[in-house]
Formats: sequence, structure tokens, C-alpha cells
Amino acid sequence: MAADRVGATGGDLTSDAKPRAGRRPGSPDTRAAVLDAAKASFADKGFDRTTIRGIATAAGVDAALIHHYFGSKDDLFLAALEIPFDPRQVIPELARGGVDGLGTRIAETFVGLWDVEANRQPMIAMFRTAMTNDDAATLLRNGMARLVLDTIAQVLDVPDIAVRAQLVASQLLGLALTRYLLRLEPLASLPAAEVVAAIGPTLQRYLDGPLTAS
Amino acid sequence: MAADRVGATGGDLTSDAKPRAGRRPGSPDTRAAVLDAAKASFADKGFDRTTIRGIATAAGVDAALIHHYFGSKDDLFLAALEIPFDPRQVIPELARGGVDGLGTRIAETFVGLWDVEANRQPMIAMFRTAMTNDDAATLLRNGMARLVLDTIAQVLDVPDIAVRAQLVASQLLGLALTRYLLRLEPLASLPAAEVVAAIGPTLQRYLDGPLTAS
Repeated sequence: MAADRVGATGGDLTSDAKPRAGRRPGSPDTRAAVLDAAKASFADKGFDRTTIRGIATAAGVDAALIHHYFGSKDDLFLAALEIPFDPRQVIPELARGGVDGLGTRIAETFVGLWDVEANRQPMIAMFRTAMTNDDAATLLRNGMARLVLDTIAQVLDVPDIAVRAQLVASQLLGLALTRYLLRLEPLASLPAAEVVAAIGPTLQRYLDGPLTAS
Repeated sequence: MAADRVGATGGDLTSDAKPRAGRRPGSPDTRAAVLDAAKASFADKGFDRTTIRGIATAAGVDAALIHHYFGSKDDLFLAALEIPFDPRQVIPELARGGVDGLGTRIAETFVGLWDVEANRQPMIAMFRTAMTNDDAATLLRNGMARLVLDTIAQVLDVPDIAVRAQLVASQLLGLALTRYLLRLEPLASLPAAEVVAAIGPTLQRYLDGPLTAS
């Protein structure tokens, strides 16, 4: 799973396993127990009140083991949500070419990810949960949105980047909703290149164009 | 409720009531029974397989009474969903000024509707149900999307209007999701005029701009 993620940084449990107390480190059981405990904690307590230590206790493992295999709380959050990309790697890669043409590159990456059926399922699941549950919406806002928006703010030197990034998110999430969830035709069957050509300029204007009425 | 709808055509049960067999026509009980039966039928059977006759039987009223007080199946559908506007009236009103500036007029109307808390609740409810239930998604597609898209196609003479209208829907629904459901800040608190200035040109380009890469 982790190996399939675009820009994934998730730990590899099959190598470099050091024996510790409690559950056998590195076993698939341990990984599953940690992820289950992480999912439960993020869902129940939200992002801010979830701690690696609390997850370790719930999973019956050492907190250091979680840090060793999964990394930070952000890493564990992405692994628990099964999001098929890591915004902290994908966004800087996209931004490397500068703001020029960034709208089209974002659109290509987004449509490329969503057009793959296997990627779609975990993202739809996150989406659905956030839509129907206020706690999950807060989790998405404080976890995913923060990871995406903080990363964008770090790599792009544009005024009003917060509202610009959220306008980009509004078009991308709306595309996910209409093309992939509601599957409105003809949009759902439109070739990826045509979707990119349609929404790329929108994203570009949100990133660096004038946003107020002229 | 119906009186508050923008462009509502829903029947008025307080006047012109003709006595019929079964439930007392025109009483609030009758209206509620019809709407409950309509909601259940649209949810269970979908739009296409719901009939006024079936709803009449379930509600214990005459089919003619439903036609008299609610109008067509489309009318009853809008009433059952408690959608605070009638796309068959709002869209032609918006389109009356021609394609010029239509993007901004659509954005103003959409933000104006959603910025009112009382309007938001039934729309969020429809949204949530459609996101989490495939039958409800089909209902939204075959009921609401069809009403909106058919009306647009009737009033706007633009090539590729179906995909253009769905791109407009993608930006509008994405705005609803980020501004009103997830309430991402600063977008959620941005003054309506700034939101309109930001997304109006997007909608305008989707309606009459070039959509393919140039």
C-alpha cells in the first residue's frame, strides 16, 4: 500500500525491525493494530487531541516504535486515512516549476490521481465521512486541509495565499464531487486532457490572477 | 415554507380546497402525508419509478388532489426535497439578460441563497444524503441535475452546454462544500461580494469561453 503512494513517506515495516517490548515490532499485526488505534483516535478525539502516546497505549506498542515506523503524527494521519498521496511531497514537486503553469500541473495531478479507481476509494471514503459527520469535517480541516494549505503557503510566495488555495480546493473538490461521486455525464466520461484544459486556467487564476472585480 | 421559496410554484393548500374522498383535502395533515409519502418513494424507488398514483395510495389521498395542490412530479420532487428555489424559474430569470455577465449573476444568486442559514439546511441535507447513498446520488442526478441542466439547455443557445453546465455545477458545489460545509477559513468568512468576484469569471468562462487548450 504505502509503496503505491505518490510521494509516500510511510515507514517500511519489512526491514530494519528492532525488537522491543510488547507486540512484535514490524509484524503486519502490529502495523494493523497501530493503524486501527490511530483511525479510532483521530475519529473520536480529532487531530489536535490525538497523541502518538495515546495510540501506542491503545495498540499495546511502544510510542518509539510508532515514531520509528510511521514517523510524525502527520505521517500517521495520512497512513490512517489511506490517502494515496502525501501533500507535503506532491505540492512542493508541483510548485518547483514556479507559479507559471501551476494551475495546469495541479489539474493534471489531481485528475491523474482520481482517474485511478484504486486511489479513488479511500479519498471518497474520507470525503463521505467528512460530509456527514461534524467531527470528521473538523478532522479533515485540521488534518488534511492544514497539511495541504501549510505546504502551499511554504512553497508559494503569493499574497492572500490562504484564500487562493481554498478557491483552488473548491474547484478540485467540486470536480471530485461531480465527476467521480455523482458521475454526471458527460463530465464523468470527458477525457482527462479536456478536464485539465477546462479547469487548469481556473486554478491558475485563483493562484496568481486578480480576484477582485476590476 | 413554500412562500419563502425563490420562484416557488408549490400549491397553496389554504385556499380553493375542493372536498374529495379519503383524507380531508387542504389540511396540513394531508399536505404532510403527501410529502412524507413522496420523500419515501423518491428515496426508495428513485425519481423515474416514482409515480403520483403510488404516492397517492401511500398517503391515502386522491391522485388528482396531489396534482391539484402540488402540480407535476417535478413540483412534488422539489417540495419533498425542501429545496428553497425552483430551478425552472430561477434559471430562466438569470438567463434573461443573455450570456453576458451570466457567470456573475449565477454566482450572486448562489451565494445569496447559501448565505441564508435557513436555506442552507435542506440543501446540505440533500447533499449529505447524495454523498453517502448511491440511490440518493442517482436521485439527485435524475431529479435535481436533470431539472437544472434541462432548464439551462432550454434557455441558453451555446454549444456543448451539457458539459459547460456541469463545469459550472462543479465550481458551485465545490464552493458549497468548502465555504458552507467544511467552513474552511478564510473562505467561509469572505464577504459575499468577494466570493462572487472570485468565482464569477470562472463560471463565465465555463459558459461561453474556450474550454480546450489553445
